[in-house]
Amino acid sequence: MRSPHGQRGGEQIGEAELAIDFNRGVETRRALQVAFFTDEEGSRFAPDMLGSLVYVGGLALEEALDARAVDDGSRLGDELTRIGYSGPVPCPTATAPHAYVELHIEQGPVLEDEGVTIGAVTGVQGISWTEYTVTGRSAHAGTTPMRMRRDPVVVAAAITGEVRRIARDFGGAQVGTVGRLDVFPDLVNVVAQTVTFTVDLRNTDEARLEAAERRLADFVGAVCEAEGCSLESKSLARFEPVAFDAAMIDRVERVARTLGHSTKRMPSGAGHDAQMLARVCPTSMIFVPSVDGLSHNIAEYTSPDHIAAGANVLLHTMLELAND
Amino acid sequence: MRSPHGQRGGEQIGEAELAIDFNRGVETRRALQVAFFTDEEGSRFAPDMLGSLVYVGGLALEEALDARAVDDGSRLGDELTRIGYSGPVPCPTATAPHAYVELHIEQGPVLEDEGVTIGAVTGVQGISWTEYTVTGRSAHAGTTPMRMRRDPVVVAAAITGEVRRIARDFGGAQVGTVGRLDVFPDLVNVVAQTVTFTVDLRNTDEARLEAAERRLADFVGAVCEAEGCSLESKSLARFEPVAFDAAMIDRVERVARTLGHSTKRMPSGAGHDAQMLARVCPTSMIFVPSVDGLSHNIAEYTSPDHIAAGANVLLHTMLELAND
Repeated sequence: MRSPHGQRGGEQIGEAELAIDFNRGVETRRALQVAFFTDEEGSRFAPDMLGSLVYVGGLALEEALDARAVDDGSRLGDELTRIGYSGPVPCPTATAPHAYVELHIEQGPVLEDEGVTIGAVTGVQGISWTEYTVTGRSAHAGTTPMRMRRDPVVVAAAITGEVRRIARDFGGAQVGTVGRLDVFPDLVNVVAQTVTFTVDLRNTDEARLEAAERRLADFVGAVCEAEGCSLESKSLARFEPVAFDAAMIDRVERVARTLGHSTKRMPSGAGHDAQMLARVCPTSMIFVPSVDGLSHNIAEYTSPDHIAAGANVLLHTMLELAND
Repeated sequence: MRSPHGQRGGEQIGEAELAIDFNRGVETRRALQVAFFTDEEGSRFAPDMLGSLVYVGGLALEEALDARAVDDGSRLGDELTRIGYSGPVPCPTATAPHAYVELHIEQGPVLEDEGVTIGAVTGVQGISWTEYTVTGRSAHAGTTPMRMRRDPVVVAAAITGEVRRIARDFGGAQVGTVGRLDVFPDLVNVVAQTVTFTVDLRNTDEARLEAAERRLADFVGAVCEAEGCSLESKSLARFEPVAFDAAMIDRVERVARTLGHSTKRMPSGAGHDAQMLARVCPTSMIFVPSVDGLSHNIAEYTSPDHIAAGANVLLHTMLELAND
């Protein structure tokens, strides 16, 4: 804990400790810029990564500024003006950057699990979210023979098993999750009437993701028909995967190794502004370990050593790029 | 619609229509008695079938009278006195009845589905209700590799599939249902932390029901271990099956056929007072069709023809038994 007067746990901190000398006399051929994009999470204004999307020309500026808050309906443009965050940079950008590099915590458990310090991010997974509502026939669990049942819980369970099998059979970066599942009427002795659940499929390869979607859709149709259940489905989200620039990935990996860090090439399972910048310039990302893979959680933590390692890989990668 | 003055749809009903002549001059060797048992459903005072259970000596009278209401904690004995339902018949009974026959709607879809009028009930299924809580590890659905997942939704889905397979493999009267299933935190992009769900297994044969329970328990343990999930389970209900008297079942069937009705031997999937009386005397039941198998539902319906058929089977079965 640090007091406003620079006191930490009773120990005095001198002025020298607080001052950081940024002037190292370094000159670069190209300018280095630090970018702050608004609304990366998209929690209040959809879509997520809105700021970087506008910057690269993927969404019209006025349309973005007209976005409405999910909580109180405020207009994004008004809110940016109100808090002084309506920046002066023209959008979309007239000249694309020479390159873009983003440092981030992994938000997953892979680096920690494998004891690796630096992730050289190869791209961002494509995401396919579908919500299914399966309707059968509510019935007495004691008096209804098995052959007369139309049980949506059995259908949802079979689909959950298939999602796991798809991830296993496809292998590689394919993941699949049933995270939300709601049963009605949800009683011990009643065959359910309706189950609503979601399937989250992700892959770094668009063709593989589409193949996973097709296999799932075929299975869903067949299992609903076999059980005599009706089906409604709707897409909740669909983003194509993004592959980062090969030379940029190589560079991050080489710089990290030169600095003595262990490295791993890996995709990002979460979305980042880098995936938007990748539309207009060579892009990559640097990941550092997340303890227990936790993120968007009060317990999210990355050790100072790992943060320093990531910052140094970012610094030296940027210095190289600035002198290209 | 009938007015208080006996008017139905504008048509006058005569006195003769409203009067029923119970005196048919019939004399029987044994007395016929109509029994009203309190608290068959058990909705307000547990356990269900409490009145008949006390009558046959399965629960002490004072213990039953001390049962407390789930809604307001009222004492059953006080409530029976208050509404004038504290009857004069000694409990437990000193002399068991010569026989007991109960007429009931099926509460299931089988008779209607097969176009049969009278069910000759062979017994009441045993019931086994278990609640499982499976705990895995909540994780990001995008960033967590499949090999590192401990997903309780996958476990619950596999168990749901096994419950269906057990019912299929055991065949006959075996039924199995997952009717309640609650996921936490129940979000599209989060591998769940915990799933709580119930399994309802029923069979008319105690050894088969126990075998089904064992097979399920083995599967549950194996699938939890394979996924790295922990497990808690608790029994919510366990009643052994009741087999009715063979000669009584024969008699119901024969009487029904003599009266010109189609018949089917079938177990009851729901509990009834008859299963308590079966402890002390030859017992059977007569089922009539339930439209769409509905019961405990405002849409519950049995046609007047079917009710009359059931009542006549009951009458003639009782007349035979009373002259044994």
